[in-house]
Amino acid sequence: MKLWGGRYDVDTDALMHKLNASIRFDQRLWREDVQGSRAWAQGLHRAGLLTDEELAALLEGLAQIEAEWEAGTFALHPDDEDIHTAHERRLHELVGAVAGKLHTGRSRNDQVATDVRLYVRRQLDQLDAEIRTVQAALLAQAEQHIDLLMPGYTHLQQAQPIRYSHWVLSFFWMLQRDRERLRDARSRVNVLPLGSGALAGHSLGVDRTFLAEQLGFEAVSPNSLDAVSDRDFIVEVLAAAALLGVHLSRLAEDLIIYATREFGFVRLDPRYTTGSSLMPQKANPDALELARGKSGRLIGNLTTLLVVLKGLPSTYNKDLQEDKEPLFDTLDTLHDLLPVMAGVIETMQPQPERMRAALDDAMLATDLADYLVRQGVPFRQAHHLVGRAVAEAEARGVPLRALPREVYARIHPALDADLSVVFDVERAVDAKQAIGSTGRDAVQVQIENARRALQAT
Amino acid sequence: MKLWGGRYDVDTDALMHKLNASIRFDQRLWREDVQGSRAWAQGLHRAGLLTDEELAALLEGLAQIEAEWEAGTFALHPDDEDIHTAHERRLHELVGAVAGKLHTGRSRNDQVATDVRLYVRRQLDQLDAEIRTVQAALLAQAEQHIDLLMPGYTHLQQAQPIRYSHWVLSFFWMLQRDRERLRDARSRVNVLPLGSGALAGHSLGVDRTFLAEQLGFEAVSPNSLDAVSDRDFIVEVLAAAALLGVHLSRLAEDLIIYATREFGFVRLDPRYTTGSSLMPQKANPDALELARGKSGRLIGNLTTLLVVLKGLPSTYNKDLQEDKEPLFDTLDTLHDLLPVMAGVIETMQPQPERMRAALDDAMLATDLADYLVRQGVPFRQAHHLVGRAVAEAEARGVPLRALPREVYARIHPALDADLSVVFDVERAVDAKQAIGSTGRDAVQVQIENARRALQAT
Amino acid sequence: MKLWGGRYDVDTDALMHKLNASIRFDQRLWREDVQGSRAWAQGLHRAGLLTDEELAALLEGLAQIEAEWEAGTFALHPDDEDIHTAHERRLHELVGAVAGKLHTGRSRNDQVATDVRLYVRRQLDQLDAEIRTVQAALLAQAEQHIDLLMPGYTHLQQAQPIRYSHWVLSFFWMLQRDRERLRDARSRVNVLPLGSGALAGHSLGVDRTFLAEQLGFEAVSPNSLDAVSDRDFIVEVLAAAALLGVHLSRLAEDLIIYATREFGFVRLDPRYTTGSSLMPQKANPDALELARGKSGRLIGNLTTLLVVLKGLPSTYNKDLQEDKEPLFDTLDTLHDLLPVMAGVIETMQPQPERMRAALDDAMLATDLADYLVRQGVPFRQAHHLVGRAVAEAEARGVPLRALPREVYARIHPALDADLSVVFDVERAVDAKQAIGSTGRDAVQVQIENARRALQAT
Amino acid sequence: MKLWGGRYDVDTDALMHKLNASIRFDQRLWREDVQGSRAWAQGLHRAGLLTDEELAALLEGLAQIEAEWEAGTFALHPDDEDIHTAHERRLHELVGAVAGKLHTGRSRNDQVATDVRLYVRRQLDQLDAEIRTVQAALLAQAEQHIDLLMPGYTHLQQAQPIRYSHWVLSFFWMLQRDRERLRDARSRVNVLPLGSGALAGHSLGVDRTFLAEQLGFEAVSPNSLDAVSDRDFIVEVLAAAALLGVHLSRLAEDLIIYATREFGFVRLDPRYTTGSSLMPQKANPDALELARGKSGRLIGNLTTLLVVLKGLPSTYNKDLQEDKEPLFDTLDTLHDLLPVMAGVIETMQPQPERMRAALDDAMLATDLADYLVRQGVPFRQAHHLVGRAVAEAEARGVPLRALPREVYARIHPALDADLSVVFDVERAVDAKQAIGSTGRDAVQVQIENARRALQAT
Repeated sequence: MKLWGGRYDVDTDALMHKLNASIRFDQRLWREDVQGSRAWAQGLHRAGLLTDEELAALLEGLAQIEAEWEAGTFALHPDDEDIHTAHERRLHELVGAVAGKLHTGRSRNDQVATDVRLYVRRQLDQLDAEIRTVQAALLAQAEQHIDLLMPGYTHLQQAQPIRYSHWVLSFFWMLQRDRERLRDARSRVNVLPLGSGALAGHSLGVDRTFLAEQLGFEAVSPNSLDAVSDRDFIVEVLAAAALLGVHLSRLAEDLIIYATREFGFVRLDPRYTTGSSLMPQKANPDALELARGKSGRLIGNLTTLLVVLKGLPSTYNKDLQEDKEPLFDTLDTLHDLLPVMAGVIETMQPQPERMRAALDDAMLATDLADYLVRQGVPFRQAHHLVGRAVAEAEARGVPLRALPREVYARIHPALDADLSVVFDVERAVDAKQAIGSTGRDAVQVQIENARRALQAT
Repeated sequence: MKLWGGRYDVDTDALMHKLNASIRFDQRLWREDVQGSRAWAQGLHRAGLLTDEELAALLEGLAQIEAEWEAGTFALHPDDEDIHTAHERRLHELVGAVAGKLHTGRSRNDQVATDVRLYVRRQLDQLDAEIRTVQAALLAQAEQHIDLLMPGYTHLQQAQPIRYSHWVLSFFWMLQRDRERLRDARSRVNVLPLGSGALAGHSLGVDRTFLAEQLGFEAVSPNSLDAVSDRDFIVEVLAAAALLGVHLSRLAEDLIIYATREFGFVRLDPRYTTGSSLMPQKANPDALELARGKSGRLIGNLTTLLVVLKGLPSTYNKDLQEDKEPLFDTLDTLHDLLPVMAGVIETMQPQPERMRAALDDAMLATDLADYLVRQGVPFRQAHHLVGRAVAEAEARGVPLRALPREVYARIHPALDADLSVVFDVERAVDAKQAIGSTGRDAVQVQIENARRALQAT
Repeated sequence: MKLWGGRYDVDTDALMHKLNASIRFDQRLWREDVQGSRAWAQGLHRAGLLTDEELAALLEGLAQIEAEWEAGTFALHPDDEDIHTAHERRLHELVGAVAGKLHTGRSRNDQVATDVRLYVRRQLDQLDAEIRTVQAALLAQAEQHIDLLMPGYTHLQQAQPIRYSHWVLSFFWMLQRDRERLRDARSRVNVLPLGSGALAGHSLGVDRTFLAEQLGFEAVSPNSLDAVSDRDFIVEVLAAAALLGVHLSRLAEDLIIYATREFGFVRLDPRYTTGSSLMPQKANPDALELARGKSGRLIGNLTTLLVVLKGLPSTYNKDLQEDKEPLFDTLDTLHDLLPVMAGVIETMQPQPERMRAALDDAMLATDLADYLVRQGVPFRQAHHLVGRAVAEAEARGVPLRALPREVYARIHPALDADLSVVFDVERAVDAKQAIGSTGRDAVQVQIENARRALQAT
Repeated sequence: MKLWGGRYDVDTDALMHKLNASIRFDQRLWREDVQGSRAWAQGLHRAGLLTDEELAALLEGLAQIEAEWEAGTFALHPDDEDIHTAHERRLHELVGAVAGKLHTGRSRNDQVATDVRLYVRRQLDQLDAEIRTVQAALLAQAEQHIDLLMPGYTHLQQAQPIRYSHWVLSFFWMLQRDRERLRDARSRVNVLPLGSGALAGHSLGVDRTFLAEQLGFEAVSPNSLDAVSDRDFIVEVLAAAALLGVHLSRLAEDLIIYATREFGFVRLDPRYTTGSSLMPQKANPDALELARGKSGRLIGNLTTLLVVLKGLPSTYNKDLQEDKEPLFDTLDTLHDLLPVMAGVIETMQPQPERMRAALDDAMLATDLADYLVRQGVPFRQAHHLVGRAVAEAEARGVPLRALPREVYARIHPALDADLSVVFDVERAVDAKQAIGSTGRDAVQVQIENARRALQAT
């Protein structure tokens, strides 16, 4: 049964049918389609368009459909073009002609918009939980290794010594922003389009506020033309997901580098590495490389939808059917990836000796400059003076602390002193006590705040 | 004077200098750079690192720099690599060696992050005002032409009659969501990175909470490693801008089509059309075509930054310098485009006769089906019956209302009736009274809500 | 059996296994994987690393695997991580330990690169044939309706009258360029990576020139490090496909507009339109809207791969596994879409009366200017004079030809003449005889050239 | 003077004028605009539409304009909307009314398409030369350090020892493909659009074949509608440039990692690194980070243009004006970046001791497996056996070669032998003699081929 029979007798071209059909990917909306139909049936009943018996029959049919999906017995028919026609067809088989009443005043345009919003809302909640698992793994690492120092890098060049916990937590806050963005997006997802008809609204007296309550929506869409073609909420989710993907790619990049034989700062658990088909000695960080690589599709999916929407005439156009695959792919990708990332982080082992061995005196150059500043030397001058000391040490092939006192004295009288306190790495790190700094106390506060952020809903 | 002199004597390669320099585009941050420096100087003073006199000298120097920019007399030097070095160089010229104290504990990494956040915050406020101007123009059109009916389209095929006001307002709500998204982004923009040093924080006792207050930031960044490389807020603004661009492209597409000779629904004001170099008769909707086309760069700029960030090692990397041009281009594009769009909308003239002439009876087919529904026919059956009527009318080459009563009677007994009420377009449109529908009362409510949304801050 | 067993005993994490496995999408490479393995076995044999019996056993096993795929009986095992391990596992079941010899000197890195190149080469040939079908449909329309005139548009505003054939053929040439680009890409696809090992090449004496001949490759990759991670050929195909998608989107856009009730220039065949679930009268151009919308994923897939590759360390990284899904999706999309586009074009019916009725005199303004030019008036002046005539006609509400002779005389003495020849649309169109112009003879030549281009290989 | 005056008296809105004007960025086309105008004048003359005197006047005027640009004295007027109107205005000032004859039969649509093609053609030749400079630098490194060995990586994990030259040359071939792609694109750039008028061609008898010869175009565009809106050639250049950018980003990534203190494989010349404003010891690889980051804008520019073109109605639309800025930005970016990359490569110093020190025995595991293969052990079994040896050595904390002979004997009888030849790195590397492998002879051949590729045109 075609939904739009009546006017034309001609059959759709077979290849066209295949191109047009979305059942292959939209069947995953079955739960939401039943949920939305249930609410609409109740709305029609309250508006006097269904009798008590008709409502009961429809609800029973819908319950049966739901049961079939849950049991894995719902059978698709070759003519089922999408989940909505599949359900209408099945409902008709189950309850007869009254099935045809369910579509009173409802169009697939507002129906699919409703289904997708319900679906995305549920997915966002799952995503939030998955991100928290990664955050929890990061936090646990930070808590366990609070006293571990490592080189901090800018430009991938050694810069200043930092706490390992501080490095780990830097990713915690990126993910925290991701969760905030997704939470903001959720409020724009959670708006009812149902009752907008094909484009113009409806005249049948179905109460949209009632529908919103039934379906747990926070608001009712204010304009039917907009409601049937608004895919902003998907763009917003895809954009937030792309950025989340970028964060995971950056974490992966750091860990891939830190797990090289040359850096050796972390050991990845064998459960998350793989071997080579040719080289027996290999332990490859595949999980992390996939995390880095999957940022590609997350960004690509965002591009896809923006291109689809660009220049589209208003209200519903079939182009909008192209919204679902990028959405589903992005959600699936994250559902697959996030738990693995949590696993990688939970099980990775920082290597204190390698980290400590990598701490070069030159990383304390800034602290030496700060020492001069405290002696009254303007910072920019201090920076130049210490630059000379660094060059001198490099030329002599010795660490900064091993430069003779007379050399220091020649550079600046204030350096004619016992500088051993400057070259105490622990002290240098812990002195950084401003909010957000890498000193122990500051990091301890950061851990407290992270715990709170994780517990908040 | 090079900031990093001392260690190396070798000069930077000239082409490298050109590639590396950002002064060409980052000089527009002069105001924010002065603002941030002023706050940092005060922070250093409170921490006891500047005397009263030193602070006074620095503030006076900064005021002078600000005055020079405002007077257009600030002179760039060929060695000025970016706005920060330009200001440090000039400050040194103005106040001497004390200039070198301003950079105590501050790195360009936290400095530029601070400047950009201050800049974006200001730009977002301007953007909000500009979007409101477009919304106001849409609202004015809706108010002025509340009784104007036009064809509503799905798939660019005539679907159901709607109010012109309803169509115009559909774009109002898209823009409203854009404003909400930008407002949400603003709260993540408005976070202080200053005091994060190059990556590790600082040990000099400058109070970051004080800095945040001075600069009007709502929060202090929780992790210095993250703070110096966090460009999420720019991605978020670029993503919201890309979606805004998509909305403008859709509005432009509708108007370009409606302004064709064939549709003829709107006349664009000559101030916003242009002629042809070859064809004397042309009046081309260039403003709208540019609005549509500029969605390209808005999406491209978003892609640019996401690619830049993908796979970047943590903390600051020079790649991040590539954040500014896409940001500035997106902001400039919108600042140029939005006022023109407001002008186009304010001055466009809907053409009531052309709209009315285009209203075909077939657009009332759904109303005819609803009529049958009210007679107890299940909707899906009613849909098929009306489909037959449409086909019949098409075959006879007559409008639906002109189909003989006996034809209707043959299709279904319930149609053996006076159907003139169904074919009353005004009535059909006004019957759509559900929230967000196209009926007069519903649109009137919508206008009220739009007014309120526009006045709210 | 894990390929990389031996070193580690620990099992891969189950979620990690799922994330890592590519068998879900790379099983479609079965044919090429067998083909490549056959060649490699022969290469090993020639290098003396396989006896005649061993070679025979391996070839028999591979033939059996091929037969199983063709019969649809090849059974995947839960541990089969990708098509290569699945085949190695099955080969072992079929021929025993000798299966382990097939992987001598071969890595999955060069193996998968070989498979994908073989696959893409085959797909490009299919794509070429499909594009030609669309071109043939366009050409047939051009040939059938050579005398049909219609308005030509710039900025979607009526510009000058053109032949319908000329408009149709404009898309022919876009597709011709697409074919050329794909043909150029093919030469860079058709390069042998096999024999590059994991990254360093091999020392076993397998003759790569022989392998290239066996597999029909035109060249042998010159550097093994590059060969195992070169995905340029996929980027190139995705880029060409994205541009092809843009062309289809433009053709679709034109047709969607021309098929509106307002334009009415073409009727689409019902086999390629669909109805509405709510509005019985609708005939929506879904095929064309999907053609327009699918440009989104084609562009998105290109973005995906570029992002994956950006900043990747050299040689093989697991990120590269992310190349296949965008590639396959792009190819599938085009295989689905192109035949439907061919069908839409073959069956569409131009509407001569509507086209002719839309031809407005103002479109001959340029011809009027050209008339003045031939009388010696400089073009720019002629353009201004005709502009005045257009304004005058517009003010009077009459067509240009109906403007009184004295009005023309007042505008310029040279216009005080019988201008009927200027307002002869056929003549005006046919006078455009320069190469590539819209005059009948020029279009006839264009048709000849198109025929030739279509027949050439 | 407005080109399209005559019909309308109303002035363009000032903001609209700003939005619409392209002179800011298209003035760089001055040379090509003069060149195209010269050819068109000659074409008009040959068609009898200009007298000898008129032609002479126009050519003299154009020569004067050219001279003014070259002298830097060409003065733009606030009303000059684009380079074409600027030139028409100036020509009028210089030669009077005859200037108006130059635009006979020519539209800005075909004019700008011609200018841009001429411009891109010239730029591609420059780009080719610049890429060759980078290739030459790579080749020089390969030649100079032919005997240098280093670890080869997959997944950024040590895999097998390779020649430094082999690694360097892997990028040579990527760039070679880039050049091939740009050369293929050039043949589609080099097509004449002039003479296509605004959209329909022309009737004035100007010989397009003559124009093509004058301007050095290889072909004449076959369809005027297509010719005025064909931007495929720009997309193709942007796509090739994006991929080139990806290659540079990969080279940069390798070098950034190899230049870390932890790897230490290369030293970058101080002319291409920069210091830190805060940390006196830093030498940051800014040039390489910018090379990596600029892949962002190269990909973003491609996205921009694809989005602009998507769904555009056929022939010229103003949206197409958005083609130039991404094109120019991409070309400028590469012109700035490529010479710097050449400089970085020319001046970088590989560090033989660090490379050699990094060569771990485990990298010879595959060679050990190959040894077993040569003793008749099936490769897959050999792989497992060697995996056990690697694990054993790891457990004992000794290199593979230091594992006692009895341990090897226990693993497999064939290993009860003098394995020192296997652990000879030079031998292992040089044994890889297949085409494209890392052995000395194979690399020597590769160098020969690279030299040839560089010399070929």
